[in-house]
Amino acid sequence: MDLPTAPPVIEALHRRADGDLGYPTWLDQPNAGPLAEAFGERMAARYDWSPDISRVHAFSDVNQALQVMLHLWTRPGDGVALHTPAYHPFLGTMEVMQRPVRPIQAEPDGDSWRFTIPDLTGCRVLLLVNPHNPTGRVLTRAELEELAELAERHDLLVISDEIHADLTFAPHRHIPFATIAPHRTVTLTSATKAFNLGGIRCSVAHLGHEGVRKALEAQPPFLFGSTHLFGVEATVAAWRHGDAWLEEVRALLDRNRRAIAARLPATFGYRMPEATYLAWLHAGRAGMAEVVEREAKVMLSDGAAFGPGGEEYVRLNFATSETVLAEILDRLSRLA
Amino acid sequence: MDLPTAPPVIEALHRRADGDLGYPTWLDQPNAGPLAEAFGERMAARYDWSPDISRVHAFSDVNQALQVMLHLWTRPGDGVALHTPAYHPFLGTMEVMQRPVRPIQAEPDGDSWRFTIPDLTGCRVLLLVNPHNPTGRVLTRAELEELAELAERHDLLVISDEIHADLTFAPHRHIPFATIAPHRTVTLTSATKAFNLGGIRCSVAHLGHEGVRKALEAQPPFLFGSTHLFGVEATVAAWRHGDAWLEEVRALLDRNRRAIAARLPATFGYRMPEATYLAWLHAGRAGMAEVVEREAKVMLSDGAAFGPGGEEYVRLNFATSETVLAEILDRLSRLA
Repeated sequence: MDLPTAPPVIEALHRRADGDLGYPTWLDQPNAGPLAEAFGERMAARYDWSPDISRVHAFSDVNQALQVMLHLWTRPGDGVALHTPAYHPFLGTMEVMQRPVRPIQAEPDGDSWRFTIPDLTGCRVLLLVNPHNPTGRVLTRAELEELAELAERHDLLVISDEIHADLTFAPHRHIPFATIAPHRTVTLTSATKAFNLGGIRCSVAHLGHEGVRKALEAQPPFLFGSTHLFGVEATVAAWRHGDAWLEEVRALLDRNRRAIAARLPATFGYRMPEATYLAWLHAGRAGMAEVVEREAKVMLSDGAAFGPGGEEYVRLNFATSETVLAEILDRLSRLA
Repeated sequence: MDLPTAPPVIEALHRRADGDLGYPTWLDQPNAGPLAEAFGERMAARYDWSPDISRVHAFSDVNQALQVMLHLWTRPGDGVALHTPAYHPFLGTMEVMQRPVRPIQAEPDGDSWRFTIPDLTGCRVLLLVNPHNPTGRVLTRAELEELAELAERHDLLVISDEIHADLTFAPHRHIPFATIAPHRTVTLTSATKAFNLGGIRCSVAHLGHEGVRKALEAQPPFLFGSTHLFGVEATVAAWRHGDAWLEEVRALLDRNRRAIAARLPATFGYRMPEATYLAWLHAGRAGMAEVVEREAKVMLSDGAAFGPGGEEYVRLNFATSETVLAEILDRLSRLA
């Protein structure tokens, strides 16, 4: 995000910098004590889910957590069902770990997207990214229930990356997959996305799936590292005291997603996201990110990185001020 | 340590808290850019070693780094030579990872300690802790060269934990094992010990051993996590700007280790450490830590945790003010 940090987070970090920086009391707890507690409170208050916080483990980020789960539960060749286009680092993980992707392809559907579910035979995992990056879709209860049935039928582990949940626009509503299929699900989340804290490297995994939980606990206890004072401090402050800031940011993002709808030149196709600060724009031909950067000095993500079907798209990050967004839209208009 | 944080570290953390907390530019570099650079500078300036900083990887702490190295390079049953008594979390790692310890036992030797090296047949790793915890011995060049010869003869990976190096008292001098056996050595260190930053969870591994380096680089890139803005910031500030503070602390620790020699009751045997803030005291019988805590309200570490031969010892952490240390010594004297 091109936005300043939430004041309660900054204050908490300053307090911590002035305090004891030695070993925290929660160091030997994989769930990092206050981190798991704040996660549990937040899930209950916002998403009507009361997770068992003894099942929380801290990781650096959702990418680490995903690689650890795949490492513990799958082998090269095991299929992973994934909504595509997809968050590109996850595609990179599938490639480097040799877990073939079974695409659940997004198709334009009116002013939104629907996903076509293929045969999942041979899959071991459903890697759910909900809210979805890059389309910004928020899956409905009916869609999640259909996925849960398929997970049951194919005995899938569901790794559910819900890192964009706090950036869901009303009337859409985020539903944790763990409330639908508690025993199949590993939930991944972090304050780093909604609160713009990518550098703190602190995320949470809730291991509802008993096999995965046991596999993780059978590992040497320090093998995957441990989280740290500042990560816990910032996350707890964001989750407990950051909601006023978050409401303002979400209101800004809501105005921005509508400004794009109003002012994006017709050369780009746009379906307004239901969550996230990402606009997945149909550019009509491949390589447009490069053209836009060269001609308009606006840096977009090239859709080709998001997997098959993304080539003619670009991704715009609109987590910026209305002024900067207006300038971006002006430049794209002049380009058209 | 029972001492306040170094001012340059506190200042750096405040600056960081006020700055951008998004993804750092070095995130995709396993060596975390500035962290590796500051490590390289420090090794050259203080220890006459110019490491190849492209071989640096960041971890949470030396415990994680050790478990990763053992995971990558050894199997259950592979022997690990280790100077004993030993830092107890390392013994815990050997037990949980089922790597049998081949003890290199410390024996009292005048006012210091010598180590008796056993036959190392069947060992795959030498886990060197130098300066040594808990005895505070700083191994001499001759001792390190003997270990290097044995490592060569038995084709050992040497994992060299040098986290106490900055707390070496003159005229003793820390010699990085990598300067003696560069291609066999993985060096582990961190600013967290000398600068009392245990909660930041940031350490460095230098992979001089090519096989281990390749094994690590063949892993999924996020599997073992990544370090974070505050860990890098604090470490770089400590290493680049913390030496005035460190000199004061080391002078205090030097006075403290001598105060123990002068005032410890004769019921305890004491060999003055050559490095560290740890005194390995012969208590003459097992279970003395419990007695001392109950009777004198002084918390010592029970030597039994440090492995065979440690039962009759206790470990005293003397990284505290002279006033507190005087009170500790008074209480131990009254106990005697």
